[in-house]
Amino acid sequence: MNVTLHPSERLDDLLTHNLRIIQSDEVFSFSLDAVLLARFGAIPAKGRILDLCTGNGAIPLLLTTRTKAHIDGIEIQPRLADMAQRSVELNGLTEQINIIEGDLKSLKLVGDQHLYDAITVNPPYMSVASGDLKENEHKAMARHEIGCTLEDVIAASARLLKVGGKIFMVHRPSRLVDMIALMRTYRLEPKRIRFVHPKAGAEANMVLIEAARNGKPEVRLMPPLIVYNEDNTYCEELMHVYYGAKSELRNE
Amino acid sequence: MNVTLHPSERLDDLLTHNLRIIQSDEVFSFSLDAVLLARFGAIPAKGRILDLCTGNGAIPLLLTTRTKAHIDGIEIQPRLADMAQRSVELNGLTEQINIIEGDLKSLKLVGDQHLYDAITVNPPYMSVASGDLKENEHKAMARHEIGCTLEDVIAASARLLKVGGKIFMVHRPSRLVDMIALMRTYRLEPKRIRFVHPKAGAEANMVLIEAARNGKPEVRLMPPLIVYNEDNTYCEELMHVYYGAKSELRNE
Repeated sequence: MNVTLHPSERLDDLLTHNLRIIQSDEVFSFSLDAVLLARFGAIPAKGRILDLCTGNGAIPLLLTTRTKAHIDGIEIQPRLADMAQRSVELNGLTEQINIIEGDLKSLKLVGDQHLYDAITVNPPYMSVASGDLKENEHKAMARHEIGCTLEDVIAASARLLKVGGKIFMVHRPSRLVDMIALMRTYRLEPKRIRFVHPKAGAEANMVLIEAARNGKPEVRLMPPLIVYNEDNTYCEELMHVYYGAKSELRNE
Repeated sequence: MNVTLHPSERLDDLLTHNLRIIQSDEVFSFSLDAVLLARFGAIPAKGRILDLCTGNGAIPLLLTTRTKAHIDGIEIQPRLADMAQRSVELNGLTEQINIIEGDLKSLKLVGDQHLYDAITVNPPYMSVASGDLKENEHKAMARHEIGCTLEDVIAASARLLKVGGKIFMVHRPSRLVDMIALMRTYRLEPKRIRFVHPKAGAEANMVLIEAARNGKPEVRLMPPLIVYNEDNTYCEELMHVYYGAKSELRNE
């Protein structure tokens, strides 16, 4: 299917199942965070999934390799929502993925029958107070809690999930305490946590959390993912993610 | 110094600095948890330290290799407090360590000048509801939240620490959400967390947390400790802990 690429945009490979995605250096680009989130946890095989803060749609696109569920992706920035929609069209996935331009804070379902089985979210990592807000508006909004805070994301998830439904979130470990405390406040009980460390001796720089609406309090701490081996090659798990087989490509 | 050993008791090596400890199969024995906790985090070099749920005193004894601070250890079970006291005498550490038989729930300091610089705690891991309570009373009390709950421990720590003072806790990862949510409630802000995994591909079975009274919300996730190498030898860090040098002793 042909879609229009705007100036500054390029077509990137999503590195799996021949999926492609429209990206631009002027806005948010997908990264390892999205790739790992889309592979984390027990994504339901069917039903309804919602991706909050969907950006240019990387997570919905990647999820289609794991599930037949219908996927809604919501994005507050019109330019990103438009890119996501064109990527959905480009990959011929308009039947499975529905991109919504809108604000998750006001998103509310009327009646219980449309509640979601799962929610995925790669939210802005930084509070408005922290970091440099001088970057361009699109990047600032994707990285900082300008359009929504962590609490907005968790409150919306609690409101939009079925009882027993799961939220899958990727975030910075420095926000772990905020995440866990807010999840418990909104009765999203963390059930599985996995930390991602760039190297075996390094602090974690990413955390993946699966929580269940009204779940029983007991969490499992999964084996850590160590991204790079000592010799700077990708670990076996990531080689498998990116190349589907063991090989020896170096990270350089 | 000579001390009396009661029937069933034996003298074990604390594996460092020629420290010895009185143990008995009839009561709680120290384990890797205590060893790792006593080595975790920035224990103050001087001042006042309190070890809650001190059991037979392993943590105060081990801490003396790292600090000149005065150490109080409190234990609710008379038999264990007595064993701890005799171990302190045996090691000639009565000047530095003071064992208190008592209930941390009622422990309260009058005036701020005696607040602690740090608190260490290896609390009972299991809720009363969970697990088998048919084991003997001493072991049941050390393992289950009979004498004190996690909330009792955290509330007492918040009450007994200076502002900025640190609590160092070891626990089961399955209780991570309880720990973090309670710590935030009592304004003990987690600052460093480390998970311990028996093997590289295994879930964590222990977690070490350092929290600061009224600390700023931002936590660091330290490199994981993987106890055993693939060939079942101890990892280098533990070889160093137990033998002070690299060697090739196997765990068999």
